[in-house]
Amino acid sequence: MTAPGGDTQHGIRRRNLARVLRTVAAQGPLSRPAVAARIGLTRAGVAPLVDELLRAGLLVEAGRAATGGRGRPGGELAVSDRGPAGLGAEIGVDHLAVCAVDLRGRVRARVAAEAANRHSAPGPVLRRLSALLAEVTDAIAAEGLRPAGLAVAVPGLVARGATTVVHAPNLGWRAADLAPGLAGATAARDGSPALPLTVENEANLGALAELRLGGGDGRPEPPPDFVHVSAEIGIGAAVVVDGQLLRGARGFAGELGHVPVYPDGPVCGCGGRGCLEQYAGEEAVLRAGGLAPGRAAAAHPGPGARIGLLARRAADGDTAVVRALQEAGTALGIALAGAVNLLDPRAVVLGGALAGLAPWILPSLERELALRTAVAADSGRAGGPVVTVSRLGADGPLLGAAHAALQTVLDDPLHSSAPAHSPRNGTR
Amino acid sequence: MTAPGGDTQHGIRRRNLARVLRTVAAQGPLSRPAVAARIGLTRAGVAPLVDELLRAGLLVEAGRAATGGRGRPGGELAVSDRGPAGLGAEIGVDHLAVCAVDLRGRVRARVAAEAANRHSAPGPVLRRLSALLAEVTDAIAAEGLRPAGLAVAVPGLVARGATTVVHAPNLGWRAADLAPGLAGATAARDGSPALPLTVENEANLGALAELRLGGGDGRPEPPPDFVHVSAEIGIGAAVVVDGQLLRGARGFAGELGHVPVYPDGPVCGCGGRGCLEQYAGEEAVLRAGGLAPGRAAAAHPGPGARIGLLARRAADGDTAVVRALQEAGTALGIALAGAVNLLDPRAVVLGGALAGLAPWILPSLERELALRTAVAADSGRAGGPVVTVSRLGADGPLLGAAHAALQTVLDDPLHSSAPAHSPRNGTR
Repeated sequence: MTAPGGDTQHGIRRRNLARVLRTVAAQGPLSRPAVAARIGLTRAGVAPLVDELLRAGLLVEAGRAATGGRGRPGGELAVSDRGPAGLGAEIGVDHLAVCAVDLRGRVRARVAAEAANRHSAPGPVLRRLSALLAEVTDAIAAEGLRPAGLAVAVPGLVARGATTVVHAPNLGWRAADLAPGLAGATAARDGSPALPLTVENEANLGALAELRLGGGDGRPEPPPDFVHVSAEIGIGAAVVVDGQLLRGARGFAGELGHVPVYPDGPVCGCGGRGCLEQYAGEEAVLRAGGLAPGRAAAAHPGPGARIGLLARRAADGDTAVVRALQEAGTALGIALAGAVNLLDPRAVVLGGALAGLAPWILPSLERELALRTAVAADSGRAGGPVVTVSRLGADGPLLGAAHAALQTVLDDPLHSSAPAHSPRNGTR
Repeated sequence: MTAPGGDTQHGIRRRNLARVLRTVAAQGPLSRPAVAARIGLTRAGVAPLVDELLRAGLLVEAGRAATGGRGRPGGELAVSDRGPAGLGAEIGVDHLAVCAVDLRGRVRARVAAEAANRHSAPGPVLRRLSALLAEVTDAIAAEGLRPAGLAVAVPGLVARGATTVVHAPNLGWRAADLAPGLAGATAARDGSPALPLTVENEANLGALAELRLGGGDGRPEPPPDFVHVSAEIGIGAAVVVDGQLLRGARGFAGELGHVPVYPDGPVCGCGGRGCLEQYAGEEAVLRAGGLAPGRAAAAHPGPGARIGLLARRAADGDTAVVRALQEAGTALGIALAGAVNLLDPRAVVLGGALAGLAPWILPSLERELALRTAVAADSGRAGGPVVTVSRLGADGPLLGAAHAALQTVLDDPLHSSAPAHSPRNGTR
């Protein structure tokens, strides 16, 4: 209940700096009075905060670049497209990827590589990832950007608030702390402090991306309460409540893939029976569609390739594949009906590789969901929560990671951006 | 993200008054320096806050009563056992109940009555409830207590932040705003402002009671993340995350009773199939145990009576009842496994009338839960979340309501307790 930083002068100033930066980042360019109005401070209260953020290079006067650095006095404020960048990385079962986004949220550099990570030890995977990180860091340095944080998306359970992958079954990783293997990539250099490292479940980062980037292009802003479902090899979900990720006591929330669908069904790798993954997981669908998972992977390697194969077959009218996808949609609808009854979200978002299968899984999914959330629907919900398809698709986790990596700057702008201002930087 | 009341002087003072009052209420008696240390303020900063709360009669010097009103200077502080009280009310299918708790959390008055509320219109039910409220208000007035708020527990969906019961199937209420029918009970009188009215789902209030009162008597404090399951006629659940109720976008979260368990099972009143209520709801269990629900109710009227009958039969070794309860436990375990995979709570608490059936439902419930949450268990959770039985049992919702009714005082101590201090009171 206590505000972060408490009610000390220092804490209040830090929060207000963060509010100004976030407001301009989300809604800028904005005039100073518009910023003041949006955060509920007086113009006189906002002026020194804006000046500090301008001096630190986090804000710029809009138009300054165009007019050779002068800007219109009292002109509009925007966040800088130089300065801090968030580094996002993704460890997939079949690929690695890294990207960097600036404070404006634009992707400034991006690399990806196919990689046979399944049952590969963390050491070699992290060495290869570190090389990709160095490539992206060099690329953005040429544009005046420096990394402010690194977030890594992994397909597995991550201990809450830690950098340890507790269990990533499809990588074969258990209790693997990623910090040592990424120490080279996060080390302090050139007078900058060491990079804060975040390790996070990919579905959670996909949901964060949806929250920040899901709107735009004429689409409505995503609601602050939704369940985000995605799939690569497994099925993952993330629960967003009031605009925040619900992480669970240990950080393991969102294991939709192991929600029981048909309790007497086949035994699952988790030890349970009839889990959602047994009906809607990638391997189950490939098998039900008459495609051997191994062959499909060999013929079409790379991220999202197996799912791409399913989509092509379905589009070509392969009835076994179409039926398998319909059945996957039914199972997803049953599991999601449980989630909706428990959580009452405003929307269910299909993201990750599932987005590309929406034409075939949505009808049966929506039918089950409507049937099984009728009490609430009947009571004013008008047909249950909206089901939408993410426009980010398989890019969600990587983009979400890069945005998450900017959090330290957005939460505490001057500590992160101006090491010379504070002796505390070196220890963060 | 913004602190309640913002960072104005007024907002900070209000928050600090609330912190002092909550700290003494939860941990008192405490000396002034101990209060200061616990809330992170200086002694000089705490002194005027304490003085204001003493003047308003919300705090007292411990020992003052015993020494004829003087108290030891600099002695320990406690919350008053006079002054504001929270009024809690419960509308059950078969009963009505009202109680009042003081700032110390002690029940100071309580009345209950059997009532045939099933399919009764709100008007007569609320008139009868108002009479019970008047009875309790008179009783506590004689002890120097005055109501500071009223919260009403109902077995149904309540619109978030409103006083409208959207759907209470077992009462037969739809879109029923309870405020007009309780206007007499909440009206301003004797110079006091009108009582703030809260209407809330009974399972949510049961969970709040568990959060505040579940510890003590040598039991550990409840964790801040748990799923609370209860039953009267229906099955309800409440989800507590970081010590806060998860309400859902519309306020309808926690509908565990309509989570699909066996998707091809019998049609449920909600329109779905194979919902948990079809296997673990009171009527389903009575029927499976060979007891006609109607006859059981007629033979043993009153709150919790049907469940009491089941417990007696099971204790007497009635094999049909024991088997029905085991099967209900299995179904509960399957539905809760879904909830645990999604939410990763630290505990599952059996509350309400279910608490009394724990000896017969727990073994099968725990077996399913352990089987179906194995990924997480295997990954450091040491056997999944703890399953506990509430010691509050069927009293939970009523006690939770009374505590919820004190929230306005605890959130904003002086506005609520000292109408003369502020012109804003009349409009709250």
